[in-house]
Amino acid sequence: MPTTNHQWKLVNRPKDLITSDVLEFSESPVPALADGQALARIKYLSIDPTMRMWMADVPQYMPPVQLGEVMRCLGLAEVIESRHPGYKKGDKISGFAGMQDYFIVSTDEKYPPQKLPSIPFLSDINFLNLLGITGLTAYFGLLEVGKPQSGETLVVSAAAGATGSVVGQLGKIHGCRVVGIAGSDEKCKWIKDDLGFDAAINYKHPDWKAQLDSATPKGVDVNFENVGGEVMQAVLDRMNLHGRVVICGLISGYTKQDPGLASFAQVLIKRLRVEGFIILDYGSRFMEAGQKLAMWKMAGKLKSRETIVKGLEKAPEAINMLFRGDNIGKLIVEL
Amino acid sequence: MPTTNHQWKLVNRPKDLITSDVLEFSESPVPALADGQALARIKYLSIDPTMRMWMADVPQYMPPVQLGEVMRCLGLAEVIESRHPGYKKGDKISGFAGMQDYFIVSTDEKYPPQKLPSIPFLSDINFLNLLGITGLTAYFGLLEVGKPQSGETLVVSAAAGATGSVVGQLGKIHGCRVVGIAGSDEKCKWIKDDLGFDAAINYKHPDWKAQLDSATPKGVDVNFENVGGEVMQAVLDRMNLHGRVVICGLISGYTKQDPGLASFAQVLIKRLRVEGFIILDYGSRFMEAGQKLAMWKMAGKLKSRETIVKGLEKAPEAINMLFRGDNIGKLIVEL
Repeated sequence: MPTTNHQWKLVNRPKDLITSDVLEFSESPVPALADGQALARIKYLSIDPTMRMWMADVPQYMPPVQLGEVMRCLGLAEVIESRHPGYKKGDKISGFAGMQDYFIVSTDEKYPPQKLPSIPFLSDINFLNLLGITGLTAYFGLLEVGKPQSGETLVVSAAAGATGSVVGQLGKIHGCRVVGIAGSDEKCKWIKDDLGFDAAINYKHPDWKAQLDSATPKGVDVNFENVGGEVMQAVLDRMNLHGRVVICGLISGYTKQDPGLASFAQVLIKRLRVEGFIILDYGSRFMEAGQKLAMWKMAGKLKSRETIVKGLEKAPEAINMLFRGDNIGKLIVEL
Repeated sequence: MPTTNHQWKLVNRPKDLITSDVLEFSESPVPALADGQALARIKYLSIDPTMRMWMADVPQYMPPVQLGEVMRCLGLAEVIESRHPGYKKGDKISGFAGMQDYFIVSTDEKYPPQKLPSIPFLSDINFLNLLGITGLTAYFGLLEVGKPQSGETLVVSAAAGATGSVVGQLGKIHGCRVVGIAGSDEKCKWIKDDLGFDAAINYKHPDWKAQLDSATPKGVDVNFENVGGEVMQAVLDRMNLHGRVVICGLISGYTKQDPGLASFAQVLIKRLRVEGFIILDYGSRFMEAGQKLAMWKMAGKLKSRETIVKGLEKAPEAINMLFRGDNIGKLIVEL
């Protein structure tokens, strides 16, 4: 049995990106298991924009991580020892693992880790991207909140990210014209050529707003918003009457003291419905969504891609990669 | 029969408030009636914030008024001559009258003026406030979009205005705790003492945000937004999980080149539903709403107040009064 656990603890709150004084790398002994507990070895950490929000001491959808605590992080792990009735040695599980080598699961978890089923054609990593929190976010955010109809135009920002790339493919499955906004030509090429988006726009090109106009000749019916600020404003300005805006993320503002601002004028004039959305509200329906996503994956209709960073010690820098747009697809730290 | 019609024509687009070069006062002959037309003499003009939007050459929910055209304006009038099958001499009508003494109604109007029924306890002016466009706006915006439940907290901005004052009273009728935000102590006194709001906050007081916190100890479930910008932001920051925001108006931005900006962060974190709303979408249900509003008025549950400006020549300045907050209740120009 392992005796030493490496952990990243939050010791200072970040001002913008994660500087070296924010997280502290430490060693602690792996505690002995009590009755009702299981010990799991983490294989992959899921690096998500929301982690930056958890680091900030502001009101949010979960309590912020407290100073001195192990940094909260989703991950995929294998149970290596169990005195827990719900898990046995060898089980693969996915859930709130923390930025560390090992974690203990007790019987009183608010969000108990999910045991991974064994499904043909699905890799472990698929349970972090297509069938993980980002795939589920795409599924419920687009289909339950955005409610796209066949023939409508869907725009998704951060379109080459883990969530955005699934949103666009789900839009195609549902008969939409899909336009993605991303931050590099390589990302645009991937979502257009490999994922089948109808158009892809690099918002770092000077004429990107004119490109957005051209790519949405019938306006925009559904905006799946991951970015906020100027990118969101440009899409809001293209919205059609009674369009829907799914606010899934506002990543452009997470590393700033002042959140990205935008005008609500189009919300009024075009009678838009704008809805915020957090995946945890849909916990009771994860199985339903997982089955559909797995089916589409097996049918070849959903593709995914990962950017993998090796080594727990690189996890803090991996978070910064998200905010610099250095990843394509799901960003994962492999331990 | 009258021979001369005075009209205010839009000749320049305003930059902020209505300066003297924006509208031109002119005289023209009253044209002879053709078959299918009626001539109406305007008694009251309804002065509404949306008029400022109609003056701007930007995309909006109706075509902007073109330069050289009579300024668009709702009003109440009496038919003085008719060759129209739908109206007879002496009928009182309400609709798009224009800023002028007389207007002609044809059979092909997109929004035909409504004939006013004769209802006990209701004055002509009630068909411009409680049963007019502002009362109908309050009714559909609050009840259909905001969907307040008994026991919830409702905040309404521009609460002493024609729409806001009805919104708050409808909130009380539906069992809400109602908090109004207005721009003077006199306005606050009226909505609290006469209209029965639970609390009223003057946003010009330095500590108004702390007052808002105190007045909403259980947070805010429904925000009926008439103002936008900083006022809206403060209310957004108080919203409860799954709260609803009705965007009815954003008056703080109408006289500025840059619209008031706000953060969408709370929309995400609190999973708010934000919906824009334009009363013209509910045209087919005006009769239903009018009957309910009339019933509540007769039962003493809805009160109203007017600020009346006398003389067509003062109509442009009356529009400015709205944006300076000089009116309490419905602002009307009496001809």
